[in-house]
Amino acid sequence: MLMPVTQGLTVWFTGLSGAGKSTLAEALGRTFRDRSHRVEVLDGDEIRATLSTGLGFSKADRDTNVRRIGHVARLLSRNGVVAIVAAISPYKNARDEVRALHEAPFVEVFVECPIDELVRRDGKGLYAKAIGGTLPHFTGISDPYEAPDRADVTVHTGREAPDASLATIVDWLEQHALIARP
Amino acid sequence: MLMPVTQGLTVWFTGLSGAGKSTLAEALGRTFRDRSHRVEVLDGDEIRATLSTGLGFSKADRDTNVRRIGHVARLLSRNGVVAIVAAISPYKNARDEVRALHEAPFVEVFVECPIDELVRRDGKGLYAKAIGGTLPHFTGISDPYEAPDRADVTVHTGREAPDASLATIVDWLEQHALIARP
Repeated sequence: MLMPVTQGLTVWFTGLSGAGKSTLAEALGRTFRDRSHRVEVLDGDEIRATLSTGLGFSKADRDTNVRRIGHVARLLSRNGVVAIVAAISPYKNARDEVRALHEAPFVEVFVECPIDELVRRDGKGLYAKAIGGTLPHFTGISDPYEAPDRADVTVHTGREAPDASLATIVDWLEQHALIARP
Repeated sequence: MLMPVTQGLTVWFTGLSGAGKSTLAEALGRTFRDRSHRVEVLDGDEIRATLSTGLGFSKADRDTNVRRIGHVARLLSRNGVVAIVAAISPYKNARDEVRALHEAPFVEVFVECPIDELVRRDGKGLYAKAIGGTLPHFTGISDPYEAPDRADVTVHTGREAPDASLATIVDWLEQHALIARP
Protein backbone atom coordinates (compact mmCIF):
# COMPACT_ATOMS: atom_id res chain seq x y z
CA MET A 1 0.00 0.00 0.00
CA LEU A 2 1.18 3.47 -0.86
CA MET A 3 1.66 5.89 2.02
CA PRO A 4 -0.45 9.02 1.68
CA VAL A 5 1.32 12.17 0.58
CA THR A 6 1.09 14.64 3.43
CA GLN A 7 1.62 17.95 1.62
CA GLY A 8 -1.60 19.85 2.05
CA LEU A 9 -2.78 22.64 -0.21
CA THR A 10 -5.95 24.33 -1.38
CA VAL A 11 -6.95 24.51 -5.03
CA TRP A 12 -9.70 27.09 -5.39
CA PHE A 13 -11.83 27.10 -8.55
CA THR A 14 -13.64 30.39 -9.22
CA GLY A 15 -15.85 31.22 -12.18
CA LEU A 16 -19.39 31.67 -13.39
CA SER A 17 -22.18 29.14 -12.93
CA GLY A 18 -21.92 26.42 -15.57
CA ALA A 19 -18.31 27.19 -16.47
CA GLY A 20 -17.17 23.73 -15.34
CA LYS A 21 -15.81 24.28 -11.82
CA SER A 22 -17.41 21.21 -10.23
CA THR A 23 -16.50 18.93 -13.14
CA LEU A 24 -12.86 20.03 -13.01
CA ALA A 25 -12.77 19.86 -9.19
CA GLU A 26 -14.00 16.25 -9.23
CA ALA A 27 -11.58 15.26 -11.99
CA LEU A 28 -8.67 16.92 -10.21
CA GLY A 29 -9.71 15.19 -6.99
CA ARG A 30 -9.47 11.82 -8.74
CA THR A 31 -6.01 12.72 -10.08
CA PHE A 32 -4.76 13.62 -6.61
CA ARG A 33 -6.25 10.43 -5.12
CA ASP A 34 -4.66 8.31 -7.84
CA ARG A 35 -1.32 9.76 -6.72
CA SER A 36 -1.93 8.93 -3.04
CA HIS A 37 -2.90 12.36 -1.76
CA ARG A 38 -5.72 12.76 0.74
CA VAL A 39 -8.42 14.88 -0.88
CA GLU A 40 -11.66 16.62 0.01
CA VAL A 41 -13.72 18.36 -2.65
CA LEU A 42 -15.74 21.22 -1.16
CA ASP A 43 -18.51 22.14 -3.52
CA GLY A 44 -20.22 25.50 -3.09
CA ASP A 45 -23.70 24.06 -3.57
CA GLU A 46 -23.12 21.35 -0.97
CA ILE A 47 -21.64 23.82 1.51
CA ARG A 48 -24.78 25.91 1.25
CA ALA A 49 -26.72 22.85 2.45
CA THR A 50 -24.44 22.22 5.45
CA LEU A 51 -22.22 25.02 6.75
CA SER A 52 -24.10 27.90 5.14
CA THR A 53 -27.77 27.08 5.64
CA GLY A 54 -29.71 30.31 5.99
CA LEU A 55 -27.36 32.43 3.91
CA GLY A 56 -28.64 34.18 0.79
CA PHE A 57 -26.98 35.82 -2.18
CA SER A 58 -26.32 39.38 -1.04
CA LYS A 59 -22.68 40.46 -1.17
CA ALA A 60 -22.42 40.08 2.63
CA ASP A 61 -23.89 36.57 2.58
CA ARG A 62 -21.78 35.50 -0.39
CA ASP A 63 -18.66 36.74 1.39
CA THR A 64 -19.64 34.91 4.57
CA ASN A 65 -20.16 31.73 2.56
CA VAL A 66 -16.73 32.08 0.93
CA ARG A 67 -15.10 32.75 4.31
CA ARG A 68 -16.65 29.58 5.74
CA ILE A 69 -15.52 27.42 2.85
CA GLY A 70 -12.12 29.07 3.15
CA HIS A 71 -11.96 28.32 6.86
CA VAL A 72 -12.62 24.61 6.30
CA ALA A 73 -10.14 24.49 3.39
CA ARG A 74 -7.56 26.13 5.64
CA LEU A 75 -8.06 23.55 8.42
CA LEU A 76 -7.78 20.66 5.96
CA SER A 77 -4.83 21.99 3.97
CA ARG A 78 -2.70 22.82 7.00
CA ASN A 79 -3.16 19.21 8.11
CA GLY A 80 -1.84 17.58 4.98
CA VAL A 81 -5.10 17.30 3.02
CA VAL A 82 -5.68 18.63 -0.51
CA ALA A 83 -8.78 20.79 -0.29
CA ILE A 84 -10.35 21.39 -3.69
CA VAL A 85 -12.99 24.11 -3.71
CA ALA A 86 -15.53 24.73 -6.45
CA ALA A 87 -17.42 27.93 -5.68
CA ILE A 88 -18.48 30.90 -7.81
CA SER A 89 -16.84 33.15 -5.16
CA PRO A 90 -17.51 36.28 -7.21
CA TYR A 91 -15.78 38.88 -5.04
CA LYS A 92 -12.04 39.37 -5.28
CA ASN A 93 -11.58 40.68 -1.72
CA ALA A 94 -13.16 37.61 -0.16
CA ARG A 95 -10.98 35.28 -2.24
CA ASP A 96 -7.86 37.28 -1.36
CA GLU A 97 -8.81 37.21 2.31
CA VAL A 98 -9.07 33.43 2.26
CA ARG A 99 -5.72 33.16 0.49
CA ALA A 100 -4.07 35.43 3.07
CA LEU A 101 -5.33 33.27 5.96
CA HIS A 102 -3.83 30.09 4.52
CA GLU A 103 -0.73 28.48 6.02
CA ALA A 104 -0.55 25.88 3.23
CA PRO A 105 -0.15 26.76 -0.47
CA PHE A 106 -3.24 28.30 -2.05
CA VAL A 107 -3.75 27.92 -5.80
CA GLU A 108 -6.41 30.04 -7.48
CA VAL A 109 -7.78 28.58 -10.71
CA PHE A 110 -9.91 30.86 -12.88
CA VAL A 111 -12.40 28.81 -14.88
CA GLU A 112 -13.00 31.29 -17.68
CA CYS A 113 -15.91 30.91 -20.09
CA PRO A 114 -17.58 33.74 -22.04
CA ILE A 115 -21.03 34.56 -20.76
CA ASP A 116 -22.51 34.23 -24.27
CA GLU A 117 -21.34 30.64 -24.38
CA LEU A 118 -22.81 29.90 -20.93
CA VAL A 119 -26.15 31.40 -21.97
CA ARG A 120 -26.05 29.28 -25.13
CA ARG A 121 -25.29 26.02 -23.22
CA ASP A 122 -27.44 26.72 -20.12
CA GLY A 123 -27.56 23.05 -19.06
CA LYS A 124 -29.70 23.76 -15.99
CA GLY A 125 -31.84 26.50 -17.53
CA LEU A 126 -30.65 28.96 -14.89
CA TYR A 127 -29.42 31.64 -17.29
CA ALA A 128 -32.79 31.73 -19.05
CA LYS A 129 -34.50 32.25 -15.68
CA ALA A 130 -31.98 34.91 -14.68
CA ILE A 131 -32.40 36.78 -17.95
CA GLY A 132 -36.17 36.44 -17.66
CA GLY A 133 -35.98 37.98 -14.20
CA THR A 134 -37.39 35.06 -12.22
CA LEU A 135 -34.01 34.15 -10.67
CA PRO A 136 -32.57 37.24 -8.98
CA HIS A 137 -28.98 37.82 -7.82
CA PHE A 138 -27.57 35.63 -10.57
CA THR A 139 -23.83 36.07 -11.03
CA GLY A 140 -22.92 37.41 -14.46
CA ILE A 141 -26.48 38.50 -15.26
CA SER A 142 -27.85 40.50 -12.34
CA ASP A 143 -24.98 40.18 -9.86
CA PRO A 144 -21.30 41.07 -10.38
CA TYR A 145 -18.40 38.69 -11.01
CA GLU A 146 -14.94 40.03 -10.34
CA ALA A 147 -12.50 38.00 -12.42
CA PRO A 148 -9.11 37.30 -10.82
CA ASP A 149 -6.40 39.62 -12.13
CA ARG A 150 -3.59 37.29 -11.17
CA ALA A 151 -4.94 33.75 -10.98
CA ASP A 152 -2.27 31.07 -10.64
CA VAL A 153 -3.85 29.09 -13.45
CA THR A 154 -6.52 30.10 -15.99
CA VAL A 155 -8.40 27.59 -18.09
CA HIS A 156 -10.72 28.49 -20.96
CA THR A 157 -13.63 26.08 -20.88
CA GLY A 158 -15.46 27.88 -23.68
CA ARG A 159 -12.90 26.74 -26.21
CA GLU A 160 -11.20 23.65 -24.80
CA ALA A 161 -12.36 20.22 -23.61
CA PRO A 162 -12.38 19.38 -19.87
CA ASP A 163 -9.42 17.01 -20.36
CA ALA A 164 -7.33 19.85 -21.78
CA SER A 165 -8.23 22.16 -18.89
CA LEU A 166 -7.40 19.41 -16.40
CA ALA A 167 -4.03 18.78 -18.08
CA THR A 168 -3.18 22.49 -17.83
CA ILE A 169 -3.89 22.46 -14.09
CA VAL A 170 -2.03 19.22 -13.40
CA ASP A 171 0.98 20.45 -15.40
CA TRP A 172 1.09 23.62 -13.35
CA LEU A 173 0.85 21.66 -10.08
CA GLU A 174 3.61 19.29 -11.19
CA GLN A 175 5.86 22.20 -12.16
CA HIS A 176 5.34 23.67 -8.70
CA ALA A 177 5.87 20.31 -6.98
CA LEU A 178 2.38 20.42 -5.44
CA ILE A 179 1.24 17.04 -6.75
CA ALA A 180 3.13 13.74 -6.74
CA ARG A 181 4.41 12.59 -10.14
CA PRO A 182 2.52 9.53 -11.44
CA MET B 1 11.76 13.63 11.78
CA LEU B 2 8.82 11.47 12.82
CA MET B 3 6.22 10.69 10.18
CA PRO B 4 2.77 11.86 11.15
CA VAL B 5 0.33 9.21 12.33
CA THR B 6 -2.49 9.06 9.82
CA GLN B 7 -5.25 7.45 11.87
CA GLY B 8 -7.95 10.08 12.11
CA LEU B 9 -10.63 10.23 14.77
CA THR B 10 -12.89 12.68 16.54
CA VAL B 11 -12.82 13.19 20.28
CA TRP B 12 -15.95 15.10 21.29
CA PHE B 13 -16.07 16.79 24.69
CA THR B 14 -19.58 17.57 25.93
CA GLY B 15 -20.53 19.15 29.26
CA LEU B 16 -21.69 22.29 30.99
CA SER B 17 -20.04 25.68 30.67
CA GLY B 18 -17.02 25.89 32.96
CA ALA B 19 -16.71 22.12 33.40
CA GLY B 20 -13.26 22.09 31.77
CA LYS B 21 -13.93 21.02 28.17
CA SER B 22 -11.60 23.53 26.51
CA THR B 23 -8.79 22.96 29.02
CA LEU B 24 -8.95 19.20 28.50
CA ALA B 25 -9.27 19.57 24.72
CA GLU B 26 -6.13 21.72 24.55
CA ALA B 27 -4.20 19.37 26.84
CA LEU B 28 -5.28 16.32 24.85
CA GLY B 29 -4.32 18.13 21.65
CA ARG B 30 -0.79 18.62 22.99
CA THR B 31 -0.59 14.92 23.91
CA PHE B 32 -1.62 13.83 20.42
CA ARG B 33 0.86 16.30 18.83
CA ASP B 34 3.67 15.03 21.05
CA ARG B 35 2.96 11.59 19.64
CA SER B 36 3.09 12.80 16.01
CA HIS B 37 -0.59 12.96 15.24
CA ARG B 38 -2.04 15.81 13.21
CA VAL B 39 -4.53 17.65 15.39
CA GLU B 40 -7.15 20.38 15.16
CA VAL B 41 -8.97 21.60 18.24
CA LEU B 42 -12.43 22.91 17.34
CA ASP B 43 -13.70 25.07 20.16
CA GLY B 44 -17.41 25.84 20.32
CA ASP B 45 -16.85 29.51 21.12
CA GLU B 46 -14.46 29.96 18.19
CA ILE B 47 -16.79 28.14 15.81
CA ARG B 48 -19.56 30.56 16.70
CA ALA B 49 -17.30 33.36 15.47
CA THR B 50 -16.50 31.67 12.14
CA LEU B 51 -18.79 28.91 10.86
CA SER B 52 -21.80 29.78 12.99
CA THR B 53 -22.03 33.56 12.93
CA GLY B 54 -25.66 34.59 13.19
CA LEU B 55 -26.81 31.54 15.13
CA GLY B 56 -28.37 31.98 18.56
CA PHE B 57 -29.13 29.62 21.42
CA SER B 58 -32.52 28.16 20.58
CA LYS B 59 -32.62 24.37 20.31
CA ALA B 60 -32.70 24.63 16.50
CA ASP B 61 -29.70 26.96 16.39
CA ARG B 62 -27.72 24.93 18.91
CA ASP B 63 -28.39 21.79 16.86
CA THR B 64 -27.30 23.56 13.66
CA ASN B 65 -24.12 24.69 15.40
CA VAL B 66 -23.37 21.15 16.56
CA ARG B 67 -24.06 19.78 13.07
CA ARG B 68 -21.60 22.26 11.54
CA ILE B 69 -18.86 21.45 14.03
CA GLY B 70 -19.60 17.79 13.43
CA HIS B 71 -19.34 18.23 9.67
CA VAL B 72 -15.89 19.80 9.94
CA ALA B 73 -14.75 17.16 12.45
CA ARG B 74 -15.98 14.49 10.05
CA LEU B 75 -14.00 15.95 7.11
CA LEU B 76 -10.84 16.21 9.20
CA SER B 77 -11.10 12.80 10.88
CA ARG B 78 -11.76 10.86 7.69
CA ASN B 79 -8.57 12.39 6.29
CA GLY B 80 -6.24 11.25 9.02
CA VAL B 81 -6.53 14.22 11.36
CA VAL B 82 -7.46 14.05 15.05
CA ALA B 83 -10.36 16.47 15.49
CA ILE B 84 -10.89 17.44 19.11
CA VAL B 85 -14.16 19.23 19.77
CA ALA B 86 -15.02 21.20 22.90
CA ALA B 87 -18.67 22.23 22.74
CA ILE B 88 -21.49 22.20 25.28
CA SER B 89 -23.58 20.32 22.68
CA PRO B 90 -26.47 19.90 25.11
CA TYR B 91 -28.82 17.77 22.99
CA LYS B 92 -28.31 14.04 22.76
CA ASN B 93 -29.93 13.63 19.33
CA ALA B 94 -27.59 16.14 17.70
CA ARG B 95 -24.53 14.46 19.20
CA ASP B 96 -25.78 11.02 18.11
CA GLU B 97 -26.46 12.33 14.62
CA VAL B 98 -22.90 13.60 14.32
CA ARG B 99 -21.54 10.27 15.55
CA ALA B 100 -23.64 8.37 13.02
CA LEU B 101 -22.28 10.46 10.14
CA HIS B 102 -18.66 9.72 11.03
CA GLU B 103 -16.54 7.35 8.95
CA ALA B 104 -13.63 7.59 11.42
CA PRO B 105 -13.86 6.57 15.09
CA PHE B 106 -15.92 8.95 17.22
CA VAL B 107 -15.17 9.13 20.94
CA GLU B 108 -17.65 10.93 23.19
CA VAL B 109 -16.16 12.27 26.41
CA PHE B 110 -18.59 13.48 29.07
CA VAL B 111 -16.98 16.19 31.18
CA GLU B 112 -19.13 15.82 34.28
CA CYS B 113 -19.18 18.43 37.02
CA PRO B 114 -22.06 19.06 39.45
CA ILE B 115 -23.89 22.29 38.76
CA ASP B 116 -23.46 23.41 42.39
CA GLU B 117 -19.71 23.24 41.98
CA LEU B 118 -19.84 25.21 38.70
CA VAL B 119 -21.98 27.89 40.33
CA ARG B 120 -19.50 28.05 43.21
CA ARG B 121 -16.45 28.40 40.89
CA ASP B 122 -18.08 30.59 38.21
CA GLY B 123 -14.74 31.81 36.81
CA LYS B 124 -16.37 34.00 34.16
CA GLY B 125 -19.33 35.15 36.26
CA LEU B 126 -21.73 33.62 33.76
CA TYR B 127 -23.68 31.47 36.22
CA ALA B 128 -24.37 34.52 38.43
CA LYS B 129 -25.77 36.35 35.41
CA ALA B 130 -27.80 33.32 34.33
CA ILE B 131 -29.28 32.85 37.81
CA GLY B 132 -29.94 36.60 38.00
CA GLY B 133 -31.83 36.36 34.74
CA THR B 134 -29.65 38.73 32.67
CA LEU B 135 -28.14 35.89 30.59
CA PRO B 136 -30.96 33.88 29.02
CA HIS B 137 -30.77 30.41 27.45
CA PHE B 138 -27.94 29.34 29.73
CA THR B 139 -27.35 25.60 29.72
CA GLY B 140 -27.95 23.98 33.10
CA ILE B 141 -29.79 27.02 34.50
CA SER B 142 -32.43 28.12 32.02
CA ASP B 143 -31.73 25.72 29.15
CA PRO B 144 -31.59 21.91 29.24
CA TYR B 145 -28.50 19.70 29.22
CA GLU B 146 -28.99 16.09 28.22
CA ALA B 147 -26.14 14.08 29.71
CA PRO B 148 -24.84 11.19 27.60
CA ASP B 149 -26.18 7.85 28.73
CA ARG B 150 -23.37 5.88 27.11
CA ALA B 151 -20.35 8.15 26.81
CA ASP B 152 -17.15 6.35 25.82
CA VAL B 153 -15.28 8.09 28.61
CA THR B 154 -16.57 10.10 31.58
CA VAL B 155 -14.36 12.36 33.66
CA HIS B 156 -15.42 14.02 36.90
CA THR B 157 -13.87 17.48 36.98
CA GLY B 158 -15.66 18.44 40.17
CA ARG B 159 -13.58 16.02 42.21
CA GLU B 160 -10.39 15.36 40.24
CA ALA B 161 -7.56 17.53 38.89
CA PRO B 162 -7.26 18.17 35.12
CA ASP B 163 -4.18 15.91 34.95
CA ALA B 164 -6.17 13.02 36.35
CA SER B 165 -9.01 13.57 33.86
CA LEU B 166 -6.51 13.77 31.03
CA ALA B 167 -4.84 10.54 32.15
CA THR B 168 -8.20 8.75 32.15
CA ILE B 169 -8.85 9.84 28.58
CA VAL B 170 -5.37 9.01 27.30
CA ASP B 171 -5.51 5.57 28.99
CA TRP B 172 -8.80 4.85 27.26
CA LEU B 173 -7.43 5.96 23.87
CA GLU B 174 -4.32 3.82 24.35
CA GLN B 175 -6.39 0.78 25.29
CA HIS B 176 -8.41 1.25 22.11
CA ALA B 177 -5.29 1.83 19.97
CA LEU B 178 -6.48 5.31 18.98
CA ILE B 179 -3.36 7.17 20.09
CA ALA B 180 0.27 6.23 19.46
CA ARG B 181 2.16 4.96 22.51
CA PRO B 182 4.78 7.46 23.72
